[in-house]
Amino acid sequence: MRATIVSVGTELLFGQIVNTNAAYLSQQLNLLGIDVLYHYTVGDNPGRLGELILHGFEECDLIITTGGLGPTQDDLTKEIVCDVLQDHLILHAPTIEYLESYFARLGRVMTDNNRKQALVPSRSTVFKNEGGTAPGFALENEGKVAICLPGPPREMTRMFEGKVKPFLEKLTNHVIHYRMLRLFGIGESQLETDLIDLIDQQTDPTLATYAKEGECSLRVASKRSSLEEAKAAVESTIETVKQRVGDHIYSSDNEELHEVVAKKLIQREIRFASAESCTGGLFAQTMTEVPGISAVFDRGFVTYSNRSKTEELGVSEETLARFGAVSRETALEMAEGLHRVTGCPLCIAVTGIAGPEGGTEDKPVGRVYISCYYDGISLCREETIRNVSRSWNRNFAKLLMLDTINKLLDGKEIE
Amino acid sequence: MRATIVSVGTELLFGQIVNTNAAYLSQQLNLLGIDVLYHYTVGDNPGRLGELILHGFEECDLIITTGGLGPTQDDLTKEIVCDVLQDHLILHAPTIEYLESYFARLGRVMTDNNRKQALVPSRSTVFKNEGGTAPGFALENEGKVAICLPGPPREMTRMFEGKVKPFLEKLTNHVIHYRMLRLFGIGESQLETDLIDLIDQQTDPTLATYAKEGECSLRVASKRSSLEEAKAAVESTIETVKQRVGDHIYSSDNEELHEVVAKKLIQREIRFASAESCTGGLFAQTMTEVPGISAVFDRGFVTYSNRSKTEELGVSEETLARFGAVSRETALEMAEGLHRVTGCPLCIAVTGIAGPEGGTEDKPVGRVYISCYYDGISLCREETIRNVSRSWNRNFAKLLMLDTINKLLDGKEIE
Repeated sequence: MRATIVSVGTELLFGQIVNTNAAYLSQQLNLLGIDVLYHYTVGDNPGRLGELILHGFEECDLIITTGGLGPTQDDLTKEIVCDVLQDHLILHAPTIEYLESYFARLGRVMTDNNRKQALVPSRSTVFKNEGGTAPGFALENEGKVAICLPGPPREMTRMFEGKVKPFLEKLTNHVIHYRMLRLFGIGESQLETDLIDLIDQQTDPTLATYAKEGECSLRVASKRSSLEEAKAAVESTIETVKQRVGDHIYSSDNEELHEVVAKKLIQREIRFASAESCTGGLFAQTMTEVPGISAVFDRGFVTYSNRSKTEELGVSEETLARFGAVSRETALEMAEGLHRVTGCPLCIAVTGIAGPEGGTEDKPVGRVYISCYYDGISLCREETIRNVSRSWNRNFAKLLMLDTINKLLDGKEIE
Repeated sequence: MRATIVSVGTELLFGQIVNTNAAYLSQQLNLLGIDVLYHYTVGDNPGRLGELILHGFEECDLIITTGGLGPTQDDLTKEIVCDVLQDHLILHAPTIEYLESYFARLGRVMTDNNRKQALVPSRSTVFKNEGGTAPGFALENEGKVAICLPGPPREMTRMFEGKVKPFLEKLTNHVIHYRMLRLFGIGESQLETDLIDLIDQQTDPTLATYAKEGECSLRVASKRSSLEEAKAAVESTIETVKQRVGDHIYSSDNEELHEVVAKKLIQREIRFASAESCTGGLFAQTMTEVPGISAVFDRGFVTYSNRSKTEELGVSEETLARFGAVSRETALEMAEGLHRVTGCPLCIAVTGIAGPEGGTEDKPVGRVYISCYYDGISLCREETIRNVSRSWNRNFAKLLMLDTINKLLDGKEIE
């Protein structure tokens, strides 16, 4: 099956918003085994939109549109699709009811132009909009299918996941299942090398690697005739992947590293504290993104000046003078001092050179020392981060802190 | 003038990357007074690419392509554009020289397929790629212009700014100048209301408002026959805007609020410290993104637990028990304690309810107290942030902290 994605909206042609819908839909259609041949973007112009839809149907069986389903005069997608696929619009009673209750809940009166949103092609399969007002729909004619979805990404993705994906699975007689593994401590090219035979031979399940700011993801996807089969195929491939690179996998469910770590700390009721120099509070900020973390996060220090390292954590002036603020010795005294001050069973500290200035031959920009006190033992990791930029270095240092805690909690060795 | 933007690349059709190039180019072309009618995305398929370019030229005078200029077999944009605009490729000697020196500098041997990148249409204006290898170019034929640019956004935007914009300014006999104002403490709709007569009457300069996570931007752009004229027109409009909403403008050069505040603190050599509860280190993290901040940032505390507020900042247990951790009284004791502990002349503190849980009728989610000690005086601001999400509330609280410092440094009143 071949598809064209048509995005409707003048705001896209003004560059006011970036078209993330086309990328999302492309990923999803490719997973379903549907080839995407074109993305088109067009403004609220009925003639141009109609022509592009006709052009798309010359080579494709499926056209997915986003946008132009709203209540205003500009919103003309439905009329055009009806013209092309020879249908007409009717008032959809369940949508009217839904819209009335929607506006009542907000305490607002439904204006007349909102009734326009309840118009759908008479032969269409209607997709209720759980996150907004305008419904979506699918319309077929002589082997050609148009699926029209709302423009706002939150509404569109929710409708796709819940309604359109099952519709397309039925249409293609396939069910898709996939899992996203997350890895740390391995580069994308090394990951590819380690799995190259699996990637080269892949028919189903398929493997796809992604890189993002120091981390890697691996998508394992299977397209089968039943969900059970697809799930079994994915699980079996994941087992093989785990045998190769299992040490680097921290989530099999697309969770972020800090979410994984926070969950473990909350579940095991381990109180913790942090002392940061080069990351400047990034670790504390990231951990406190997680609701409920206050049950175990006691406090954090951003000891940026040398004086604050001494006053707050008791790092000795001699250590600072002899080894420098960026050193194994200072990092260890930070973590141990943090434990002394807070009494927390888990204390993590970092000091390093974030750049762009401040590097030396011995200690280049990107050098970090991560020290962790846990269970009566303190350790220190020296790492040299590939110096990409100040923000990259800081983010990578934060990931190293999280990775250190994660490994300690799992009883794994720190290299 | 009318334009079509054509993005070439299979990775776009797989959804592996989001098409930010089309949005960037649309913004730039609109500023130049060029209407964008279509965005097309197509894979590395010569037939389809050629057809789309022909289709674009039916209605448009200008086509800008991105991608497909690289050294591999798939990269066919140049050949197609030559076919359509009746030219042929020749080896461009300056590009060969540049490529040879480029690879020599990297200590790599230039492979043969890289020479392919030095092929350009014989009649074209060549744009050197300062950030990569493949050059861009512009080719005209019978009033139709094709501009071909490399796909990587960093290379493309640099080439556009430095080479393509002047080329288009010459082509359209216009020069564009714009400035981006940044505002805080005013919503986008209020901003529009305050400037509605200017926006409604606008011919040149044009005004465009943007909203982003609690902040607003206003672009003032002018298209004239000379840069001096354009600059004068922009400055004069900005003066009028300042008379209306000047209190809310924190930058006329598109700087972020934390950059503005950091610059002032560094310039005036004002040492500062922070104590955060609900923002969990976000303030410290944001300030320490700025290189050179270590000269004035002494330390930060993330006093998440009540015990840490007492132990680190000396907030009295009685205050916590009587007024609660989220209260004006606690915030003031945090800032004053912070000054006592650190001796810094500027001390900022925040406590609040980030959500999603923890709100009460009296103190709903989004309630924050921001206290600042500066120049011997401490003040406290109570604000109730519109509760969008935990991360929104935290980010907005951080902006309120920055806004408080910015106003104090400017001697402005805090409402």
